[in-house]
Amino acid sequence: MTTLVFGHKSPDTDSTGSPIIWAWYLNQIKGVDAKPVLLGEPNTEALFMLEHWKLDKPEIIADVDAGQDVVIVDTNNPAELPPSINSANITGIIDHHKLAGGLETAAPLEIRIEPLACTATIMWKMIGSDIAQMPTEIKGAMLTCILSDTLEFRSPTTTQEDKAIAWSLAEDLGVDMTDFASQMFAAKSDVSAFSEAELLRMDSKEYEVGGKQFRVSVLETTSPASILDRKDALMAAMPGVAEEDGADQVLLFVVDILNEEATMLIPNDLTRSVAEKSFDATVSGDTVVLPGVMSRKKQIIPNLKV
Amino acid sequence: MTTLVFGHKSPDTDSTGSPIIWAWYLNQIKGVDAKPVLLGEPNTEALFMLEHWKLDKPEIIADVDAGQDVVIVDTNNPAELPPSINSANITGIIDHHKLAGGLETAAPLEIRIEPLACTATIMWKMIGSDIAQMPTEIKGAMLTCILSDTLEFRSPTTTQEDKAIAWSLAEDLGVDMTDFASQMFAAKSDVSAFSEAELLRMDSKEYEVGGKQFRVSVLETTSPASILDRKDALMAAMPGVAEEDGADQVLLFVVDILNEEATMLIPNDLTRSVAEKSFDATVSGDTVVLPGVMSRKKQIIPNLKV
Repeated sequence: MTTLVFGHKSPDTDSTGSPIIWAWYLNQIKGVDAKPVLLGEPNTEALFMLEHWKLDKPEIIADVDAGQDVVIVDTNNPAELPPSINSANITGIIDHHKLAGGLETAAPLEIRIEPLACTATIMWKMIGSDIAQMPTEIKGAMLTCILSDTLEFRSPTTTQEDKAIAWSLAEDLGVDMTDFASQMFAAKSDVSAFSEAELLRMDSKEYEVGGKQFRVSVLETTSPASILDRKDALMAAMPGVAEEDGADQVLLFVVDILNEEATMLIPNDLTRSVAEKSFDATVSGDTVVLPGVMSRKKQIIPNLKV
Repeated sequence: MTTLVFGHKSPDTDSTGSPIIWAWYLNQIKGVDAKPVLLGEPNTEALFMLEHWKLDKPEIIADVDAGQDVVIVDTNNPAELPPSINSANITGIIDHHKLAGGLETAAPLEIRIEPLACTATIMWKMIGSDIAQMPTEIKGAMLTCILSDTLEFRSPTTTQEDKAIAWSLAEDLGVDMTDFASQMFAAKSDVSAFSEAELLRMDSKEYEVGGKQFRVSVLETTSPASILDRKDALMAAMPGVAEEDGADQVLLFVVDILNEEATMLIPNDLTRSVAEKSFDATVSGDTVVLPGVMSRKKQIIPNLKV
């Protein structure tokens, strides 16, 4: 049986690239028949990665069959995985997020979770000396994943290991990292083709805080103005998205990668209260700038209060 | 804050030794203040390990405080952990069991689960070249854990890695493995001091199969006769233990380490049906011998049918 390797339902660069990296490793080094797949349309930065390194776009699947061999990467949260995930045969999990609970397996398996910025960094460590056999396009995917998840080392999630491995890959590939990261971030920032509802769901995770269900959405961009120009339409789309997705409120953070700050949209009293209590912010209008805030995982979620 | 390192509630050798090994590593190599603790009385083989290698018996704790830093080893199942485990700060999990689901963390952490026979084997791999700094008594605990969980390589859970690491430790320590394993198994087999109810709970895990809740108990011994002599009293104690623990039925497997077979007790129609459907056995009396069956994880649980 072919082992399917996939990340989460809103494929960003790491969730698109890491399945490709791991399926290469399983096929070429471990002799396991494996295939990368996606659980949704990749974002514009992930598409840039595929085009730049001439990688095939993986097939998108809606669910998995019972008993299907799967390896899960870049998440361990059943809410971000196919509906039938707990009837599949999960043979491995490689991730860098908190333990969500809810995944169960019938047999012992291989799990590797580390508090690093990027799944691809953990894979680099697991692959070890077999990296020598990795072709250019897979190394390229790995570098792109690390630069994406660390926001070119600006994110506070960045560790020395993420940095050292990215530098080593860039040198190996002869890539000018600053120039390449600019191209990546420009691709990620080109969101003109997306509707407001699509933007609110593009990079979004649900969390419960104080009895309220929040859809916490982040848009990382080098062009915050192009998104904030649409703030009225974005705020108008929030109640509909929240209702459809069973949430009480959408929180949108527009992360300015270059200036290392986030702008949070404040459509109502609830979001104002969240901004003031969570980030010690003084809110006067319908947006508030949060200096230094770049990471949902490290700075937004752990501080969220109602 | 001191990090507490512990295994599961019914401490066998691996769940007693692995916390000691990992606390040594955290203290001496990683510079993290750590302390091994137990969640219950260690079994007779684990006590033999402590005495033989002159290790202090860890303190037994009943629960953990909210926010307490903890590392969990040899389990990932909340049912086998302190009641307040999900309010503790879990900084690491090292295990070799199936994913039980139910554990949650607030932040990313380090998790390493591998389908090897023994937690100590995984720790050996994680510690790497720092093994050179490990004192004799910690290496001794590691060897004891591996010999215990593999039943001196007889268990089908045994992997080449478990074997190779045990051989390397035994050579390093100048230990005659066969002789040492005999002493361990003799210690484990000396259960004369325990009541029938204690024996039924000594190495026991709960599983639901076909809507029935089973307490699946295993007694590994080189002296099966000394346990089977007590079979009438053991069967008489089963209904009381099941009722107290909220289970429908206790299943007891007496594993004969040297003859590599298990004897299952058959007190009633339900257990007879389980034996026949799960192990293709023909039951005529109140016990049935299951040739080759040694591992709950690999041979009993995956086959259990009602």
